[in-house]
Amino acid sequence: MKLRRSERMVVISNYLINNPYQLTNLHTFASKYEAAKSSISEDIAIIKKAFEENHIGEIETVTGASGGVIFRPSISRDEALMIAKSLCDKLSESDRILPGGYLYLTDLLSTPTILQNVGRVIANAFKGETIDAVMTVATKGVPLANAVANILNVPFVIVRRDLKITEGSTVSVNYVSGSSDRIEKMFLSKRSLKPGSRVLIVDDFLKGGGTITGMMALLHEFGSELVGVAVFAENARTKKMDISYQSLLRVLELDVKNSHVTVEIGSLLKND
Amino acid sequence: MKLRRSERMVVISNYLINNPYQLTNLHTFASKYEAAKSSISEDIAIIKKAFEENHIGEIETVTGASGGVIFRPSISRDEALMIAKSLCDKLSESDRILPGGYLYLTDLLSTPTILQNVGRVIANAFKGETIDAVMTVATKGVPLANAVANILNVPFVIVRRDLKITEGSTVSVNYVSGSSDRIEKMFLSKRSLKPGSRVLIVDDFLKGGGTITGMMALLHEFGSELVGVAVFAENARTKKMDISYQSLLRVLELDVKNSHVTVEIGSLLKND
Repeated sequence: MKLRRSERMVVISNYLINNPYQLTNLHTFASKYEAAKSSISEDIAIIKKAFEENHIGEIETVTGASGGVIFRPSISRDEALMIAKSLCDKLSESDRILPGGYLYLTDLLSTPTILQNVGRVIANAFKGETIDAVMTVATKGVPLANAVANILNVPFVIVRRDLKITEGSTVSVNYVSGSSDRIEKMFLSKRSLKPGSRVLIVDDFLKGGGTITGMMALLHEFGSELVGVAVFAENARTKKMDISYQSLLRVLELDVKNSHVTVEIGSLLKND
Repeated sequence: MKLRRSERMVVISNYLINNPYQLTNLHTFASKYEAAKSSISEDIAIIKKAFEENHIGEIETVTGASGGVIFRPSISRDEALMIAKSLCDKLSESDRILPGGYLYLTDLLSTPTILQNVGRVIANAFKGETIDAVMTVATKGVPLANAVANILNVPFVIVRRDLKITEGSTVSVNYVSGSSDRIEKMFLSKRSLKPGSRVLIVDDFLKGGGTITGMMALLHEFGSELVGVAVFAENARTKKMDISYQSLLRVLELDVKNSHVTVEIGSLLKND
């Protein structure tokens, strides 16, 4: 379909936004929109400028016959901080406190715009790394891992706490469940992760780190490598296992009696 | 920030793509990019033409002081059929057959591009409806519901088969599990769905329809309304409960002995 430049820029932008971290040859655009490759190059230059100046992301041009363009989403530090601050406020709402000192997070982790923003912030923190998959544990981590995987355009891998027949053969490891201090099992389908994968672990809430340690043991079983650990929120008061991780939010105090929660921005955005 | 028209169109396109089903006042763009409202109107007209001619979606202009633009993603019938056909081929791969006559789908339901495409096809089928939330059951339905909710820009609601302390108070119903023919329970957090919501149910695989019937009972308990039921794939051979639903794919035959699967396009795309 032949398009005018202005329209072409709109549809190429749409394509890049929906296909991040993917190399696309300029010939693809040129033949699809019946334009000279040089015109497409000019379009890309304008899109690149607009994307970069507005912190939408970076566009890399790879030269050569098998070259093309790759779009990598990014986020400005200001926008990331604004997102984190608004989530601090939301987490501090006193009616989130549940009996037993838990925080209700489900509404936040099931709202597309929030998930998309958190996904952008977490993915941005690992932008320089090669990542083949995002791993999480069922059920609450799934939307978060999905959101990060969407930005990085890689599959996500769901570790389960139960055995499901629809997963085929699985590998299992033991881990210490933080909430009950008991030894439990977690399972990962053999098909779901290729050996030698570089994996980012993402989870919703970190208390002791038992499930994270379990996932790290699974990575070892699958001959895969840990790139990093990112959690939506952590409880700053609990004793952690010896793992290195980054958090978007830190819950400093959770006072059930007085219905008071204190939350600050976590390490993911704090030190740079 | 002052931008040239071409750059403005790129950033406005990006904004609309990331904020579907949301009314945005043209003043927002005008003040953000230091342009006259009339210039923004012209930008929108070009974007609208490009989006509509390329089946990216429709842009509605709402006039009046509280007016603005709304972007609703869409997909052409050709592209939807192409996506469904490619998934038919993938589902027909003989190594997906698991002992017991199950199909391994996890790899498909954890790949962002596939999920995004399936989300677009399902959301498009319900484009004319008012939908407040997408409901599914943990764990396998979650990424699918997430994908549909992303396109419709509404929250998704996760029904669980177990009781979790982090969900707060829950409502439970009994349902007949298709795989075991036993009566089981499913739970939904009281906070997760407002009364009077109009809900689209989405699930990964339909056999007997027990979990769907359970979710419908939950909707009734929450004083909410069913808009429709969409499943990624259905088993055409199994006896279904009396529910009306649409499927993207239909598994006609699953021959474990000869490692043979036959899949066709389901009702979601078949009859229009």
